[in-house]
Amino acid sequence: MEKDISLLKETTLFENFSEEKIKKVLSICGKVSFSENAVIMREGEVGDTMYVILKGTVEVVKTLVLEGMDMDEDEKVRNKVFTKLTAETHPVFGEISLLEESKRTATIKALTDCTFYEIKKDDFLRLAEEDCELGYQIVLNIARVVCSRLRKADEDVIKLSTVLSIVLKES
Amino acid sequence: MEKDISLLKETTLFENFSEEKIKKVLSICGKVSFSENAVIMREGEVGDTMYVILKGTVEVVKTLVLEGMDMDEDEKVRNKVFTKLTAETHPVFGEISLLEESKRTATIKALTDCTFYEIKKDDFLRLAEEDCELGYQIVLNIARVVCSRLRKADEDVIKLSTVLSIVLKES
Repeated sequence: MEKDISLLKETTLFENFSEEKIKKVLSICGKVSFSENAVIMREGEVGDTMYVILKGTVEVVKTLVLEGMDMDEDEKVRNKVFTKLTAETHPVFGEISLLEESKRTATIKALTDCTFYEIKKDDFLRLAEEDCELGYQIVLNIARVVCSRLRKADEDVIKLSTVLSIVLKES
Repeated sequence: MEKDISLLKETTLFENFSEEKIKKVLSICGKVSFSENAVIMREGEVGDTMYVILKGTVEVVKTLVLEGMDMDEDEKVRNKVFTKLTAETHPVFGEISLLEESKRTATIKALTDCTFYEIKKDDFLRLAEEDCELGYQIVLNIARVVCSRLRKADEDVIKLSTVLSIVLKES
């Protein structure tokens, strides 16, 4: 228990939470394990679970090109972005599913055997109703994670537009 | 007062709020007016105010190309996206500033004489501390607005990558 509390305090979402609040969060956390190569979520599918990485490394795969484009297998791979998330800082993924019903924006695959905490939307909403102070703190932190993802996406739009504008100028 | 209450209930951020909650929100809303052509906020500047459009139309201008690129004046204009927001649905802008200190991601200019409600970060945080249920509801709704902006940015990344991949294939 003590270990779980200190671990959850290391995550961005729950850092600086009091021990009492952390215990409440733990009461809705399930521990799940996935084997190497398992797919935890698939881009485009609707999900209702957020994950906190406790152990292992996952790969985040996002498709960069519209479906229906004529591509061979090599091109399909080239047209994806691959990033890695490791347990080191206990990052979260799938956090938007706690806020609203929406499609997963990336496929997440276990690169090693992995263990996560999972929090389901319904459990979270119930907890937030019971303890609105806790609900407020968590949603504020999730919103900040979404803001940082938005900043990253905005930067990508600018970089891509810049490259496109250079390429079009030269052609 | 009755008019202000029903108006705020029409906005995405405060729809379905009880009259008691709306009154609390109104207690931290200031009413501000800007003349045609006034700049309400500038891209890149740090701000601490969110706005709800009550009257008028604004233009949202976002730079699409990295600074420092060699461009003439025509190109500078071509390399911006312009969108409009009208009072009709009472949209909000600058909402991220209530969640965290961050730079404005667009320049907002009044296309007509405009009136807004403004809510300042410090007032909002104080209100959320006093009434965490209200804080939770507002942050959840702001987070959903940020999610929809993220979805839009993700779509733009995919569209731009697709165009770039087609252009590079043809060149």
